[in-house]
Formats: sequence, C-alpha cells, structure tokens
Amino acid sequence: MVIVMKAGATAAEIASVIKHVESLGFRAHLSEGEERTIIGMVGDERPIDPSSLEVLSGVERVLPILRPFKLASRDFKKQNTVIHLRVKQRTITIGNSEIAMMAGPCAVESREQILETARLVREAGATILRGGAFKPRTSPYSFQGHGEIALEWLAEAREAYGLAIVTEVMSPEQVPLVAKYADILQVGARNMQNFALLHAVGEARKPVLLKRGLSATMEELLMAAEYILSHGNYEVMLCERGIRTFEKYTRNTLDINAVPVLKQLSHLPVIVDPSHGTGKWEYVIPVSRAAIAAGADGLIVEVHPNPAEAWSDGAQSLTPQNYRVLVEQVRRVAAAVDRAL
Amino acid sequence: MVIVMKAGATAAEIASVIKHVESLGFRAHLSEGEERTIIGMVGDERPIDPSSLEVLSGVERVLPILRPFKLASRDFKKQNTVIHLRVKQRTITIGNSEIAMMAGPCAVESREQILETARLVREAGATILRGGAFKPRTSPYSFQGHGEIALEWLAEAREAYGLAIVTEVMSPEQVPLVAKYADILQVGARNMQNFALLHAVGEARKPVLLKRGLSATMEELLMAAEYILSHGNYEVMLCERGIRTFEKYTRNTLDINAVPVLKQLSHLPVIVDPSHGTGKWEYVIPVSRAAIAAGADGLIVEVHPNPAEAWSDGAQSLTPQNYRVLVEQVRRVAAAVDRAL
Amino acid sequence: MVIVMKAGATAAEIASVIKHVESLGFRAHLSEGEERTIIGMVGDERPIDPSSLEVLSGVERVLPILRPFKLASRDFKKQNTVIHLRVKQRTITIGNSEIAMMAGPCAVESREQILETARLVREAGATILRGGAFKPRTSPYSFQGHGEIALEWLAEAREAYGLAIVTEVMSPEQVPLVAKYADILQVGARNMQNFALLHAVGEARKPVLLKRGLSATMEELLMAAEYILSHGNYEVMLCERGIRTFEKYTRNTLDINAVPVLKQLSHLPVIVDPSHGTGKWEYVIPVSRAAIAAGADGLIVEVHPNPAEAWSDGAQSLTPQNYRVLVEQVRRVAAAVDRAL
Amino acid sequence: MVIVMKAGATAAEIASVIKHVESLGFRAHLSEGEERTIIGMVGDERPIDPSSLEVLSGVERVLPILRPFKLASRDFKKQNTVIHLRVKQRTITIGNSEIAMMAGPCAVESREQILETARLVREAGATILRGGAFKPRTSPYSFQGHGEIALEWLAEAREAYGLAIVTEVMSPEQVPLVAKYADILQVGARNMQNFALLHAVGEARKPVLLKRGLSATMEELLMAAEYILSHGNYEVMLCERGIRTFEKYTRNTLDINAVPVLKQLSHLPVIVDPSHGTGKWEYVIPVSRAAIAAGADGLIVEVHPNPAEAWSDGAQSLTPQNYRVLVEQVRRVAAAVDRAL
Repeated sequence: MVIVMKAGATAAEIASVIKHVESLGFRAHLSEGEERTIIGMVGDERPIDPSSLEVLSGVERVLPILRPFKLASRDFKKQNTVIHLRVKQRTITIGNSEIAMMAGPCAVESREQILETARLVREAGATILRGGAFKPRTSPYSFQGHGEIALEWLAEAREAYGLAIVTEVMSPEQVPLVAKYADILQVGARNMQNFALLHAVGEARKPVLLKRGLSATMEELLMAAEYILSHGNYEVMLCERGIRTFEKYTRNTLDINAVPVLKQLSHLPVIVDPSHGTGKWEYVIPVSRAAIAAGADGLIVEVHPNPAEAWSDGAQSLTPQNYRVLVEQVRRVAAAVDRAL
Repeated sequence: MVIVMKAGATAAEIASVIKHVESLGFRAHLSEGEERTIIGMVGDERPIDPSSLEVLSGVERVLPILRPFKLASRDFKKQNTVIHLRVKQRTITIGNSEIAMMAGPCAVESREQILETARLVREAGATILRGGAFKPRTSPYSFQGHGEIALEWLAEAREAYGLAIVTEVMSPEQVPLVAKYADILQVGARNMQNFALLHAVGEARKPVLLKRGLSATMEELLMAAEYILSHGNYEVMLCERGIRTFEKYTRNTLDINAVPVLKQLSHLPVIVDPSHGTGKWEYVIPVSRAAIAAGADGLIVEVHPNPAEAWSDGAQSLTPQNYRVLVEQVRRVAAAVDRAL
Repeated sequence: MVIVMKAGATAAEIASVIKHVESLGFRAHLSEGEERTIIGMVGDERPIDPSSLEVLSGVERVLPILRPFKLASRDFKKQNTVIHLRVKQRTITIGNSEIAMMAGPCAVESREQILETARLVREAGATILRGGAFKPRTSPYSFQGHGEIALEWLAEAREAYGLAIVTEVMSPEQVPLVAKYADILQVGARNMQNFALLHAVGEARKPVLLKRGLSATMEELLMAAEYILSHGNYEVMLCERGIRTFEKYTRNTLDINAVPVLKQLSHLPVIVDPSHGTGKWEYVIPVSRAAIAAGADGLIVEVHPNPAEAWSDGAQSLTPQNYRVLVEQVRRVAAAVDRAL
Repeated sequence: MVIVMKAGATAAEIASVIKHVESLGFRAHLSEGEERTIIGMVGDERPIDPSSLEVLSGVERVLPILRPFKLASRDFKKQNTVIHLRVKQRTITIGNSEIAMMAGPCAVESREQILETARLVREAGATILRGGAFKPRTSPYSFQGHGEIALEWLAEAREAYGLAIVTEVMSPEQVPLVAKYADILQVGARNMQNFALLHAVGEARKPVLLKRGLSATMEELLMAAEYILSHGNYEVMLCERGIRTFEKYTRNTLDINAVPVLKQLSHLPVIVDPSHGTGKWEYVIPVSRAAIAAGADGLIVEVHPNPAEAWSDGAQSLTPQNYRVLVEQVRRVAAAVDRAL
C-alpha cells in the first residue's frame, strides 16, 4: 500500500506512521515529494485493512497496490481453466476454443414445459439446459419455484436429451440437494456476495456459474470467485449478465468490456447472459453476436416455448425459432473470430 | 397495469391483448389516444409479471400502477410501527418521538474490547450496542468474525450495562443461534435480497434491522421488508446506510432523501447509519445531525476505543470522545425538530 | 399521460383533476381500479410538463405514454438516414451497409503528427480522420488544443489523403469557424445537453456526430438529437462512447445494448467509440468487433503514431500497427453480419 | 504519481520507465515490493496526463497522488471565502455564519408572477431571488425562457423588494447581458463542464453559483470551480443539487455528504438546492433542515405562487405558505448548529 500524508504532516506524524507500518510487519519506504510525503508499505498487503491506516494522524489517504484476488488471477495461473462436463458418454468442455451454449426457460414451470424446451434447444444446438427450480424473486407474492420436483424433471430432461444441467442454488443448505441433480451450480446475481453461500459451493465438487452482482465491479466479482476457489473448488465460470445503470430502455446494461477485461485478468471462463443483460428479446440476438465477437466462452440464453405464457421473464425469452436464428448467427461470428460452437 | 400499444398496432392485436387480459381475470379498459392505444387492466395486478405482457404482439410497454408492497405501506397501516425492547427492567422504544441511539464497534474483537466499548457508549448516551460476531467481508482472507463466542461476550455486555444488542445474521441456519443472544437481528446490505435469509428472519420472533442494499432502490428495500412482514414478523426497521454512486471522496453516498420518503410511504421506523453512509469519521457527526433533522428515528454509529487498532472499518469509527460530541450535537438538533434522545 | 390518483383520493379531487386536464385542451378518460383511480389524458402530451400535474391535490404520480422525441424516431421516418460526404471526387456514405471507419489522434498536436497519422490510418483503411483542435479538458491546466491552426492542418491532411474530417466544436460562436474546415461537426459528451450549442449546430449545414453524455440515457441522447433536427439539420449520427458506471478497471462502460436499441427506435446512424468506451487500448479491438457484430454503422477510434508521447488519451490510443489489426478483424466480423468496410 | 509495474516487469522495462519519468523533468523514486515494483514520480504532477504513462511497456497502472485542484483547495486558502452582495444600501453576505436564503420560481413566467413571488419570499425571509430568464430544457418543444425581458422584470423585482438576483447564463455570449442584470450568475448542472462557459464567467466580475453536474464527482465540481478561479474570478459558490442514482421515488438524490466534504476540501461557500435535490415539494422542508444541520451556507428553493400553474418544475415548487414554514423550521435548526438566517 502507498500511504499519502497530508500537505502539512509533521515529522512526528510521519515517524509515527512508519513505526505503525513496521509494527504490522512491513518495511516502510519513504518518499518526500514537493507537496506530499508518501510512505510505501513493502510486503503482502492483502490481509491489511487500508481503512485502519487512514485514521492515523497526518494521513490523507491510502492506495492499495496489489489486486486483492490471487487464485483467480492470471498472475497465479497462466493457462485458461477448462471445465469438462460428462453427460451420457459425451464430454462438454467450457473455456477452450468451443463456445458453450446454455439455454432454457427462466423457471421450470412443469414437466412438459421443461422436456419440450429441452428438446427444442437441443435441436437448435444447445448442449446445456438452464431452468430454475428455486427462484429468487423481488416480491414475496411471485412464484418462487417448484423446488425438488423441478430438479427431478431437469434430471429427466438430462437423460432424455443428453444436456448438462445448470440451475440456481439459493442457500447453503440447498447445496447438497441441488448438487445431486445439477452439472453446474448457479449462484445468482443477488447472491454474488452471499458469503455463506460462496463458502458452501466452494466446498461442493461441482462447477459453479457465478453471476456478477447487479452493480458489482469486476474486482468484486473476482473476489467472489476467490471465495469459491479458496475453499477448494477451482471450476468457476464468471457470468456477465448486465449491470444496473440509469438506462431505462433496457432492463440492465450488458458490460461488453467485461469480456476482454476478465479474460485478461483471470484464467476462468467467461459466460455472457444476453437475456438479463438486455431484458428484451429483440436485443438478445445482436448482443449475443457481440459477446462472441468480444471473446466470450459461452452464452446462457432464456428460451421458452411460448414467452407470452411464461411465468417470469417472458419479455426477455426467445421463442425456439428465434433461438435457432441466434445459433446460426452466432456460429458465423464465432467463425470470424476463429472459434466454433 | 397500463398496457401501451405500439403506434401501428392493429385492431386484431388490440383485441388479442384484451382477450389475454381478460383470461388472466382482469377487466380491460380501452383508451384510444391520438398516437397510441392504451389498455388498462382493472384488478390487483401484483401477482402478474408485467414482462409476460410486453411480449404480446403489438405491445410497446407495460406500466405498473400499484406499488408492489402492501404490508409495509402506509396505505395498509396508518400509524407508525413502534418497537419495544426489554432490557433489564428497562424498555427501549423505537419509532416514536424518542431517537434510538445504537453504537459500537464494527466487529467484536475481544471480550475486553466489547465490554469497554459498551461502557463508553453507554456513558455517552447510547441504549443499544452494535458489534459483529459474523462478518461479511469482501475478501476471503479478511477476518470473518469470532462467531458464537462473540455473541456470548455481547450478552455479557448486555447484562453489565443494560444495553440491547443488535448484531448481524448471515444465513438462515444462523438465525436460531443469533436470535438466542440478540435483541435485534441485523440483515446486512449485501444480504438485502438474500430471500432465504429474509424468509428465515421473517419466521423469527425478534425485531429486524434491514439494511438497504448497496444500489437498491427504496422500492426494493420495501419489498425486502415485505418478505419479512409476509412471513409474520412485523417488527422491521429500515436502515439507510448509503448507496453506491460515482463519488470517490466518500465510501458511499448517504441518501438523506430516503428518510422523508420512507417515512411517507411506510409505517416502519427509519434508522440511519452515517458510518457506512460516509465511510470517514470526520463526516459522521455532521451527517448524523442531518439525519435527525430530516426525521430519522435513530442512528447506528461505529465507535471503537482505538480506531487505528480496529480490525475493520477503522477509518469510519468514532473515538468514544467524538461519540460524546455526536450525542450532544444530535441532542440539540433533535430538540429543534421536537424530538428527544 | 396517465394520472394515478392516491388510494384515498376523493370524488372532488378526481373531478378537479379532470377539469384541469380539460382546461389544458385534453380529453380525460377515467378508469376506476380496485385500489386506485387513473385518469388518461388523450391528446399530444409532449408540450405538457408532467411535474405540474403531480402537484394537484389527490394525485400520486403521472406516467408519460409517448416517447418525447418525434423527428428522431422510426415512427416518424421508417428508412435509415444515410449521410453522404464528398471528399475529392469520392463519396463516403454513412448509415447504409458500409461501415464508416473514423480514426486519428485525440488532439492535433502538430502538423507533422496529424499528417503522419492521416497517412497511416488511410493506408490501414480509414476514410474519415478525427483529431481535436479545440479540446474540452477536465483541468484548466491541461492542453486545450491548438485552435484554428490545427483546423488548417486537418484541412491539409484532407487534401493530401482524401479523408473526410470530423472534429469537435465546443461553443456556438465556434460553429462557423469549425464548419469551414470540417466535414462532420462533433458535439462532445460533456456538451450533449449544451442546448445553445445544439441549437447552433442545428442551424449549420454540416453533418453532426453527437456523442452520448457520460451518464445520459438513450432517451436524453435522442432528445439532444431532436434539438438538432428541430432546427433543420437532419444529418445527425448518434455516438455511443461509453457511460459512467461503478466499474474501475475501464474508463467507461461501453453500452453495447445501445446499438440495437437506437437502431430500433431511430433512423439515425449509430457510431461506436471503443476508445473512450473502454479507455484502454488492449480492449479496443475486441470491443470494436463486438460493436460491428451488434450492428453499428461505424467506428471512431483513437490512433496515435506513438501513444507514449501523446499529449492526451495515450492509454486508449492504438498504434498504427494495431489499428491495421483492428481493421482486418473488423472486416471479418462485418462479413459475418453481411456488411463491409 | 505512483507508477505500478506489472508482476513480471523486466529490469529493462523498469529502467525505461525511469528514463521516461526523468525526461519529463521528474525525479524517479524506485520501491521494490514482494510482488510489484513501484516508481514514484517526484514533482508537480498536475500537468502530466497519467494516461500517457499507462501505455509504457511493463506498466500496470498509474495512481495520481495530488488533488488536481489548487486554487479551490483549503491547502491554498485556509479561511472561508465570504461573498458580499450590495443591494440598495444593504449588504448580503454568503459564507460566514449567516445562512443565505435564495428563493423564487423555476422560470420567470410573467412580470406579475415574478413581482408577486418576490414580495412573498421577501416577506417569508429570503434575501436573494431566483428565476430563470434562459431555461435549459431537455426537450426543444418546452418553454425556453422569456430572455432579456425576464431579466428586466427581475431587475424591477430587485428594486421593488431589495432582493439580490441569481439567474442562469447558458452560453458565453450571454454572459455580458446576464451580468448586466444579475447579482449572481448561475451555471446550471448540465453546463458544469461547458468549459467555454466556465471560461467566460471566469472573466466576468460577478459571483458565480456553480451547480454540480448530474453525475459529477465532487472532484469534477471542484475542477470546474478551478476553471473559474483560474480565470480570475474568485467568488464562486458550490451548489449541491442532487445527483443521478438508481432511485426512482425522487428526481435526484441529494448528496448530503457533499456538504461536510466540500467544506473540508475547499474554502468556497456551499449552497444546497433541495428542490432539484428531491424533485418533490413534500420532501423539500425536511431535506432543507438536513442541509443546514450538515453545515450548508445557504439554500436555493423553488417557490411558485401557484405550483399547479407553473410552466415547469411544479412538482418540486413550494407554495409561499410552505416556504414560510420552511424558513421557520430552518431557523430553529440553524440555531441548533450556532448559525442564523
């Protein structure tokens, strides 16, 4: 960390800060500028709370130097993390040159609905089925998901169509249950900093799809991944699903920059969710093309056999026909950046 | 809800929307404007997902009319909710003309630290002691709280100084444990939309201090309260603790508007946290005065015997001396708005 | 507009609102719901300030129905606006199937610098040269641009390499001077709501590149375009250049959603600025690919012969070599969406 | 500035950065940490663009150390700037212990309206009259102000009631005209970074009320003030008028933190605008109390004889009766913080 002293800081204040820095086990490195004295702390600053240094007499502010994440960083691991899913003899890989195609309804509404959607997205080219059994809803009066029975229907769809399953887990005690049925555990945007949940999925032995919080920075997303990695689960996918901005014509603002930035800073696969990232089905196809052009490793897209009848997220769900169009267009863009579906 | 049709919507599209509305059990009310036709849905719209209507052919957008919260609203309950805490023969009330003064360290660091802080804030005028036993931390490498032993030390401080205890609960399975020791269960900002946790504290029989999420709207805060209320716990305090903005000179931006807005829309008490709301101890006193002047029902303030030694949040913690200054200044402002500490 | 009455609004209040609505020249359309009465105003609501209606007794809130822009909307003009620039016998078109490639330095620093950059970007495939003669700078102590002499150098580069010129104009009185040299007048992000300037460029007879403000919504961008159109200048390009968000790893967050949304709502060409949109040269190429994949009509990119020596925006400037890479990659993606450079 | 090198930066890269730093006229100060080498630049960094350093080979990022503003800072001038206005024998002072009370309509609508409002706010206790002759409006179809004739009516109100006049100026060429009539030149939020306008009011010899931009940081506000100061006009008031956030129940979010922060960082007076800061008249009074409790030097409040008939901002305008209530309540809070109206 670099400690910036106030303009009028006295020699006694500077000496006292140096003494404090040394008492924490760091070397202090003094640099006197024309207007400000700055003190560098030499050592691994990550366990130190910069806030406690700001309160020292004569200190103006404290600037961290190191990125706070370690295991999630490219400094730590140079090669891309590649995740392998085994489904009925087939292996689906995520994070190499192949684009992962995840698709399905917002919520599992019935056995028929999920089986039909599974068939349709499989035919269109998806390899992973999404669908919520436990639904985080802003209102206590909205449908909260069918729970375990929906997990069973998902497992049935897995068997029937050879699709891997990604589904959300909402609390630590649900982890064993969901892990029994799912190939990928999804941590939702509202739970990105639910540390008890991150801890629990970190101890599970299933890949995790970690969604970026509604107004989380990429650093916070990477720190949330760090929680999972630090508990021993190294198979984490980072999911950009749009952030909250002032814009009202779209539900969220998909942060396309996040794709190259996360790929540069981290070795973890980056998945894009254009359905939540835009909130309107008309924009899902062009934004999916953009995600792949920017270098994303996969897409997770909401598809419903009949969006007008969807119990949630109808406006952002594609019809199966439109999903087929999406797959074809994405295939062409993927080829233009030397990748394949 | 009001459904706005596109400029060129056909008669068939309009008829089809009306039919759909009626099939949902609503009356449809047609209004033809010069450029747009609008269709009003008459009935309780709250269980309907507007998103599913936006996808109907010819629809431009859908505007909800009703506030989505009910139990938390002043429409539902006109008089202020007043919460009573019993601590050693004394009753502390929150939500009437008296200002609730909560104070204490960010984290419970040791038995000595919490007992000493309890004594000092009690002398200064606080009636409720804060202190974290379970700490949500951005980094997995930071101190995560002492857990149950810290709860025991809090209980000891409660006995020794007659202070009620407010402390954070982070997951559904912690609720019974924390409720055994605490007078008020705190739901932290990052957990404001942890619906499993809201459900669990909704079933507890302890008052809840619900902190506004980092970039939550007031409507989302009130919907989170609605979760708790709808599970049968009516003793909820809304806590404004600053929201994330672009401003970098402060850690968060305390939303002072939230005080009169929440008091107008809801019957629940409104507590302000100027420590997180500013992030720097120098600004805590003026912003505390502002909160009371705006009509807040209480303050929750971080106080540490020695902020430079604090394990977390040192920069925003007041010394006990400064807390005494705060109490005196707040007392004068309270009197100017006909309230008292 | 739809006027939502409060839950307890009286018959007298409702009657009084209706009377007020009629006094403004509208028909009032009453709809009584279970919890709220709503009153529709039938007529062209655009000149009415909704704010004045909110203050009427018994009114809860007022919801506008119509988009506030007219001339900029697809409702008004179905076909894409195509802009033609004539440069030395050649015609450059913007807004049809061809992608417009604008490139050049942040600021015109010297005659040599701008001529050399012009040559290099021309060779790489650009057809329009950017470069600031008047620079809006956050600090009064930063370089503010060379002014008129820089415009002359730009004109010289135009002659030498057959490139059209886009350059910024900062105040109404500069418009005639800049219009003398430039093919496109740029209105910068900080001036997007400088209404005196919008008025002035609206009366000029030169195409305008209008940059979205730092935290402007698309509606506000379209309203700024409407100012220009309503003063008689129909050749306006909308430029997405990134918006301010909480993210700190990038300078701004490029709103990729804006591309399909603006193309849907408006007939005006949409240009993307990936240099300001990311703020770091490493991310400019992937985000340029994404912009074209999403449907943008052009790119405006900062290129400097030697970014480390740039007087401004060095970190986001490409070297000429990297710009050549960009052009090649963008060409492939353009082909994948049936367009060409 | 502090230059942070990448983890694997080579000795040659470090040497090259040092050479570059020295070539710019700075001393380089090397500090080798465990994971990163950092290089301090010793000298006045303000004219250097950090962006150009980030592009050097091996550099990870660049951290500025000094605040970029100088003349506006308390480091530069310890005592509060106090502004004196002379109106008909009387002197009104701003920035000392007295609270400045500015009030009046959003726009000057007619001679009668402005004279009547002037009389009413004068009786209630205001000393400065606000009212727009030139109005920045989001829509080109909205009322844009009466222009010069409105300035004449303001001058008449000044004569009749001994009120100083604050009114907005929108472009450099309007400055001489507005300065002829006004005691204070207002720069609106949308023009906070209209640098040509800041330059022009910097050369005027009239005090300036500078409004914070819609999503400007305090540093940007202070840099805008620096523009004015650096052109020789030292009488600048900083106006907090609410910033844009995700909150929808209020028009803007008044940043109450800005009051103590700006008072600490700068010697300039701080004025609060609770009308734009909330956007709803019901919240103007509590938020005005809060502003004074936090330490503001004055309030600028929209008052209209009949808000329902106001041509703009009706929802946030107080009636004269409510303004009298505001003055009485603010007077009590001012006394509680040892100040007076």
